[in-house]
Amino acid sequence: MPNRITELFDIRYPVVQGGMIWCAGWELASAVSNAGGLGVIGSGSMYPEVLRVHIKKCKQATPHPFAVNVPLLYPNIEEHMQTIVDEKVPVAFTSAGNPKAWTSFLKAHGVKVVHVVSSVKFALKAEQAGVDALVAEGFEAGGHNGREETTTLCLIPMIADAVKVPLLAAGGIGTGRAMAAVMSLGADGVQIGSRFVASEESSAHLHFKNKVVATREGDTALTLKELAPVRLIKNAFYDQLTAAYKKGTDTEELKNILGRSRAKKGMFQGDLTEGELEIGQVSGQISAIKPARQILCDIIAGYEEVMEEIRQQAHSRFCF
Amino acid sequence: MPNRITELFDIRYPVVQGGMIWCAGWELASAVSNAGGLGVIGSGSMYPEVLRVHIKKCKQATPHPFAVNVPLLYPNIEEHMQTIVDEKVPVAFTSAGNPKAWTSFLKAHGVKVVHVVSSVKFALKAEQAGVDALVAEGFEAGGHNGREETTTLCLIPMIADAVKVPLLAAGGIGTGRAMAAVMSLGADGVQIGSRFVASEESSAHLHFKNKVVATREGDTALTLKELAPVRLIKNAFYDQLTAAYKKGTDTEELKNILGRSRAKKGMFQGDLTEGELEIGQVSGQISAIKPARQILCDIIAGYEEVMEEIRQQAHSRFCF
Repeated sequence: MPNRITELFDIRYPVVQGGMIWCAGWELASAVSNAGGLGVIGSGSMYPEVLRVHIKKCKQATPHPFAVNVPLLYPNIEEHMQTIVDEKVPVAFTSAGNPKAWTSFLKAHGVKVVHVVSSVKFALKAEQAGVDALVAEGFEAGGHNGREETTTLCLIPMIADAVKVPLLAAGGIGTGRAMAAVMSLGADGVQIGSRFVASEESSAHLHFKNKVVATREGDTALTLKELAPVRLIKNAFYDQLTAAYKKGTDTEELKNILGRSRAKKGMFQGDLTEGELEIGQVSGQISAIKPARQILCDIIAGYEEVMEEIRQQAHSRFCF
Repeated sequence: MPNRITELFDIRYPVVQGGMIWCAGWELASAVSNAGGLGVIGSGSMYPEVLRVHIKKCKQATPHPFAVNVPLLYPNIEEHMQTIVDEKVPVAFTSAGNPKAWTSFLKAHGVKVVHVVSSVKFALKAEQAGVDALVAEGFEAGGHNGREETTTLCLIPMIADAVKVPLLAAGGIGTGRAMAAVMSLGADGVQIGSRFVASEESSAHLHFKNKVVATREGDTALTLKELAPVRLIKNAFYDQLTAAYKKGTDTEELKNILGRSRAKKGMFQGDLTEGELEIGQVSGQISAIKPARQILCDIIAGYEEVMEEIRQQAHSRFCF
């Protein structure tokens, strides 16, 4: 499947694993890269020295390219960026901030830069900042999310028309059918987060992985829109937020309810009641924890099945 | 393109026009049916005697099958249903209510029944009620919408897996690329609303049609979730709702702000400030008012283009 994304990253399949906080360490990233995709270490939940260890271990575990995801609001961002450059990480994914801030620095040191956006406006800004590729992430995605609430189905064709750089679709993709769908819309590849949360190599707590498997349609919601919109599983913590919204609330109170380390508590420590359980709507389609290699294999096989179905349909062209 | 949907409705293309209130009269429905799709009269904004006139005119304007959409919360629903049966309308689309209520009656009189759902749970209920097909409508759709906020990309594969009846995808579809995408996800056809609002034959006010053309990404929102969730263009009326939410509100106050005839005021009378302007996220991709036949032709041509691209790619199968 050679295309602009496989050539840019030097990988076999145009499938990138999302760099999810608390889930995407070196074990998951190296497993995905070894299987022919692009593995991504999620640095947003790592202290600078922890990130360095994960990068070193990832290099030992795979001869293939991998990436690091850095949320641009990370407090010790200078240290993270220096680590990426020092360790010659081939690709950096940046999100949640201004793409102008770090793109030149990274590119000057030979690191390819991909920026995550959720609107046409920010896609154009990122392209102008010189990024090598974009991830466009729709409303159905897990974790932090755009304010416009544009879904993947609506977002991808608009961004594909607006920019020239290669485009990865994210949000709602966990199967080969969904990969085929977004490729039809103009994406050059996919970024998949939630499906890899429920992988054997994910560092998420087993309670959280099992909860993802049990999650059904309608069990997630986008909330905390006044702070930074985030999609999570509805649980007791979410009910607290809902109660606050119902009686009328403000950002101060929401910050107090959120407190600190909610995501760690839920996703890494397995507190399903009080923790913040970030996952996408596609969790409703996830029914088992699997090895990352198997997940990638299933996705490619499912994608090829759709392509074969279309190839076997009789040629038909209509005009009026 | 013969498939389960074209055979069920006896139409050329598996494209159904949405029966939008204030927009979908006999002019639009007959134009779509004459072009090879299934035109649908939207009865939700019509008095019983007005619906009868539209059906009679539609029959005169096209020899092809067409349908009537009936929201099940319509106050004079008995009269609407009797009119559909009396006039031997081939297909009825029902929405916003219990599919058990009218399916047997309609089917006993030879009317095919399609029910609109936004979740797997309601898809199963409708199938059990004996409907001939389903429309599954995602979060990005305009007008009234599901509470689960599941997007089309996530909803279609889950419903396609859960039911046996033919499935139309709706929400976010206005182009052949999007049609190809949802067909990859397991849909047998599409229902398209917003794109046909901005058609020459739509009975929407010209001010509203021009507003739809001017609407860009992020200009719509899903609101009034406490009453019945509805997607509309952000305008002065929407700002009133936002202000109420900000200070804390209840359903009583929301009902008062909404008042009566907001949708008529906006969509039919062209009041872009105080009216309710129902439209989907796909409005961001609509750049001209066109004849319905041209819209359908563009969609089929775009769909065929995607199919051709895939057919021309070299056969490639991967395994690990």
